[in-house]
Amino acid sequence: MTPSLEKLIGKFSSLPGIGRKSAVRLAYHVLSMPEEEARDFAEAITAAKKSVTLCPDCQIFSEGGRCGICSDPTRDRAVICVVEDTRSAEAIEELHEYHGLYHVLHGVISPMDGIGPDRLKIKELLSRLDGSVKEIIIATNPSVEGEATAMYLSRIIRPLGLKVTRPALGLPVGATLEYADGVTLLKALEGRTEY
Amino acid sequence: MTPSLEKLIGKFSSLPGIGRKSAVRLAYHVLSMPEEEARDFAEAITAAKKSVTLCPDCQIFSEGGRCGICSDPTRDRAVICVVEDTRSAEAIEELHEYHGLYHVLHGVISPMDGIGPDRLKIKELLSRLDGSVKEIIIATNPSVEGEATAMYLSRIIRPLGLKVTRPALGLPVGATLEYADGVTLLKALEGRTEY
Repeated sequence: MTPSLEKLIGKFSSLPGIGRKSAVRLAYHVLSMPEEEARDFAEAITAAKKSVTLCPDCQIFSEGGRCGICSDPTRDRAVICVVEDTRSAEAIEELHEYHGLYHVLHGVISPMDGIGPDRLKIKELLSRLDGSVKEIIIATNPSVEGEATAMYLSRIIRPLGLKVTRPALGLPVGATLEYADGVTLLKALEGRTEY
Repeated sequence: MTPSLEKLIGKFSSLPGIGRKSAVRLAYHVLSMPEEEARDFAEAITAAKKSVTLCPDCQIFSEGGRCGICSDPTRDRAVICVVEDTRSAEAIEELHEYHGLYHVLHGVISPMDGIGPDRLKIKELLSRLDGSVKEIIIATNPSVEGEATAMYLSRIIRPLGLKVTRPALGLPVGATLEYADGVTLLKALEGRTEY
């Protein structure tokens, strides 16, 4: 295997969810592309990297300054939904039911990986909390790191007099109790609602 | 294939989750068993069917009359958790956190399958609602039929002045927003709790 092929395989396998075998397959696919197509592919990578920046307000990946959501005058500026990454915001956007703003942390607190609060876009979040914001929905993932990050943020934001909420934990719609994991089932029972 | 083998395959494939191929494999496995073992297997089926009955109170599968949970004087008799099947009750028991009683409906309302409320153990549930019961947790599965059944029960039970609750819908613990299904994500956001 030539060094340049080995390097390309290495690049592909550094992507999330791509193992060595898939990386080899993808790399050979690139080799079999017409030269122009390969060049287009390479340029798409550098161009995307160059032109996609962070929205100065919500830190979402955006092209050309302020993002479409922050620029939209119909969005409810009283609510900010804090998420780990842009994809989480997109998942919520796809519901077409949330009309507030977002704030992307670009990560979660993870001491194991050496990621402290200073590595996240928390300073930028705090600078947005003027009097117009009334509720912060902390929609980090319900993982150990996501919970720790939510806890950290809540301790900073609650003393400012804002309402801090977190999406419900519980049984996913369509689940069966029999196969639910114990922690989720317990949270669902603890968080049971009047019906 | 002999008629008796065909019949055995048919019996195995009538079990939930067993397709034709698995049924063939299982049937051949039975044929290769020593005769005594096959007889033991057959007897285990008839014996279980004969000796396992329903608890006269909660309708859980039980051996020899009233079940261990209903007979346990330390259980909280003010709360009844209504479930679709015995396995759901077992899943909750395994949490070791719920100390009330159960009531097994043995199914859900499903007009498509011709199952109306009269086919479920609802009469038996209502006969248990004396003054000592304060809360009914309707823990049917969060499926279309489970929801319909919960709605039906709630409409009957709420007018009796009892508290009716339902386990929380939301993100399962450890989930990621990105991959959550839309309905679940929406329920999680709607049911967000103060944090």
